[in-house]
Amino acid sequence: MSTTKLNVSRRIRATPYKSCVESHGVSGYSVVNHTVLPKGFRKTVEEDYWHLKKYVQIWDVGCQRQVAISGHDAAKLTQLMTPRDLTNATVGQCLYAPMVDEAGRMLNDPIILKLAEDCFWLSIADSDVLLWAKGLAVGMQLDVQIHEPDVWPLSIQGPLSDDLMEKVFGRVVRDIRFFRFKTLRFEDFDIIVARSGYSKQGGFELYLDKPERGAALWDALWTAGQEFNISPGSPNLIERVEGGLLSYGNEMNMENNPLECAMDQYCQLDGSIDFIGREALRLIQRTGPQQLIRGVIFNGEKCPPCQSPWPILRDGVMVGQVTTAIWSPRFENNIALGMLERNHWQAGTEVTVQVEDGSIRNGMVTDLPMIDHCTG
Amino acid sequence: MSTTKLNVSRRIRATPYKSCVESHGVSGYSVVNHTVLPKGFRKTVEEDYWHLKKYVQIWDVGCQRQVAISGHDAAKLTQLMTPRDLTNATVGQCLYAPMVDEAGRMLNDPIILKLAEDCFWLSIADSDVLLWAKGLAVGMQLDVQIHEPDVWPLSIQGPLSDDLMEKVFGRVVRDIRFFRFKTLRFEDFDIIVARSGYSKQGGFELYLDKPERGAALWDALWTAGQEFNISPGSPNLIERVEGGLLSYGNEMNMENNPLECAMDQYCQLDGSIDFIGREALRLIQRTGPQQLIRGVIFNGEKCPPCQSPWPILRDGVMVGQVTTAIWSPRFENNIALGMLERNHWQAGTEVTVQVEDGSIRNGMVTDLPMIDHCTG
Repeated sequence: MSTTKLNVSRRIRATPYKSCVESHGVSGYSVVNHTVLPKGFRKTVEEDYWHLKKYVQIWDVGCQRQVAISGHDAAKLTQLMTPRDLTNATVGQCLYAPMVDEAGRMLNDPIILKLAEDCFWLSIADSDVLLWAKGLAVGMQLDVQIHEPDVWPLSIQGPLSDDLMEKVFGRVVRDIRFFRFKTLRFEDFDIIVARSGYSKQGGFELYLDKPERGAALWDALWTAGQEFNISPGSPNLIERVEGGLLSYGNEMNMENNPLECAMDQYCQLDGSIDFIGREALRLIQRTGPQQLIRGVIFNGEKCPPCQSPWPILRDGVMVGQVTTAIWSPRFENNIALGMLERNHWQAGTEVTVQVEDGSIRNGMVTDLPMIDHCTG
Repeated sequence: MSTTKLNVSRRIRATPYKSCVESHGVSGYSVVNHTVLPKGFRKTVEEDYWHLKKYVQIWDVGCQRQVAISGHDAAKLTQLMTPRDLTNATVGQCLYAPMVDEAGRMLNDPIILKLAEDCFWLSIADSDVLLWAKGLAVGMQLDVQIHEPDVWPLSIQGPLSDDLMEKVFGRVVRDIRFFRFKTLRFEDFDIIVARSGYSKQGGFELYLDKPERGAALWDALWTAGQEFNISPGSPNLIERVEGGLLSYGNEMNMENNPLECAMDQYCQLDGSIDFIGREALRLIQRTGPQQLIRGVIFNGEKCPPCQSPWPILRDGVMVGQVTTAIWSPRFENNIALGMLERNHWQAGTEVTVQVEDGSIRNGMVTDLPMIDHCTG
């Protein structure tokens, strides 16, 4: 199966929601940013998928650590770290931003929260962006402070998220626009609430900076959520693959550049902004990427989890690799994300997938997200 | 218990020894450097402890990733990253080295392998040192290449290590001095073999750079080890605590400096070398550290694993915290590593420990390593 035992210690940090997820019978964990990510509850992944698309869920995503950059050069350093143009970013905005090194290689894909003109939080995927930022700051003698604040995101996802959040925070939550945040009052303290999250079902992320109040926050949302059939959950693999949501470390890593990750819209390469890796990305742009992240649908019985990339072949020749795969009850087929080489990434291209159980499955390349393009 | 389920994916990397540890019935994992660390086999931790002290074990420590720094400025950058004086380091030497930031805070504690005058491998603990090194190099415009090579350490530990290694590599292994390495021949390829490892029982670390030959290497050692009663294993918590071996993320993290981690001997603060954080460490040295890593022995039944620090009290006042604890069959008591405040770290100081099961235990501060000082 896809799970095996995790030994715990101080090094792999618990979150403030530990007692809550345990009381709901959490059965599996992953590890992200030296922190546990609760992954399995009493529902199967498929039951969880249908629930997430219909109701509302509460997720412990405390592993989404923040890298706080503040000070005189904070805006300069943050812009140096991403090809995304931050020039017109406004306070209160969230920005999905690829981060690349001097060769244009992906280091992370955080959401940047602009807290002030001179203060940014990078809400990171699984790599120590703090060390990259600090290395640059020390090396360039920038006037910034960089630290990991004691902040523990909690996520509310699903179509009934607004109804639930209104009950706890008031009507104001409905005024939060997509990828914007507001500071709202909870009991006797403030909390940053963003309309964002790692699903395509709508929802919010709450940036709790009072870990001792984690259980109180969870409980308030849980109690208010009863009438909306709330369930504990976690990023759902089926929903994420259908929605084309990428995972750093799975779909891409330091061997990839943002253009092959289909992040063109977040890469301002016209020379109007200065960032590390710009010349490298312009060079790649000139010829175009050699591979691209795409969807793949393939047949046969329910596939095992993808622990290491599976070869994708066309006419017996390897033309790509699957990086994440799972059975989709909606497509009644296996669905996957993967990299396809240049002449083989067109939607409809027929391929075969070498699954790690030894089977060879017939499949087809799809656009991303799958759910819009393949079922209408 | 100390284990819970781990969900696997590409992001948490398997090692080349996966099939080997699975065939031996691995039952638990930790995650280090985005890579699995197999932790549990058929023996209990106590059975494993006695075995390690008497025979020989083979450990999959592929999670000890390498940060390779090479090029014209490689020696300069490597020295900038550590307070340890590398001036007289020789090719073929391994050097345990604290790594600190501009404020003297611990970022990692790798073993540095000097492969050539202009080539170093940092064999790292659990943080992305690669990003710190790259950030500094980009920021300072240094002439270096930095990458993570496809190298997967395998460890042979225990008093019969020399006997086993001689059978596979020949008599030459006995000539490898402590914390030195040689390049040895295995079948048709070369492999770096160091006399080092994360135990006090003696042994070797093999830096395999041909992952496709991982099973062959494991099998050769396993077969040769039969007459020495070889067993699969992993860093043993009892042996490590008794031996005073620290774990980055457990005993120390970015909140600590190397002086309070008892790493004075690895900190050259006289101004003869230039490294990041030097002035900060000199300032700390002037007044002396405010706390120190020490051993603690405490009574009562077998303690649970330490998932978050446990308060250490003296006369009802908090004077430190336990970060790792386990029952020692040798001491017939619980043993721990932890930080003690300045006026309370003397060996023999009587304290109480607030264990996370709610119990309060009577204990005593000890020197490190425990095994030399407390039982002779």
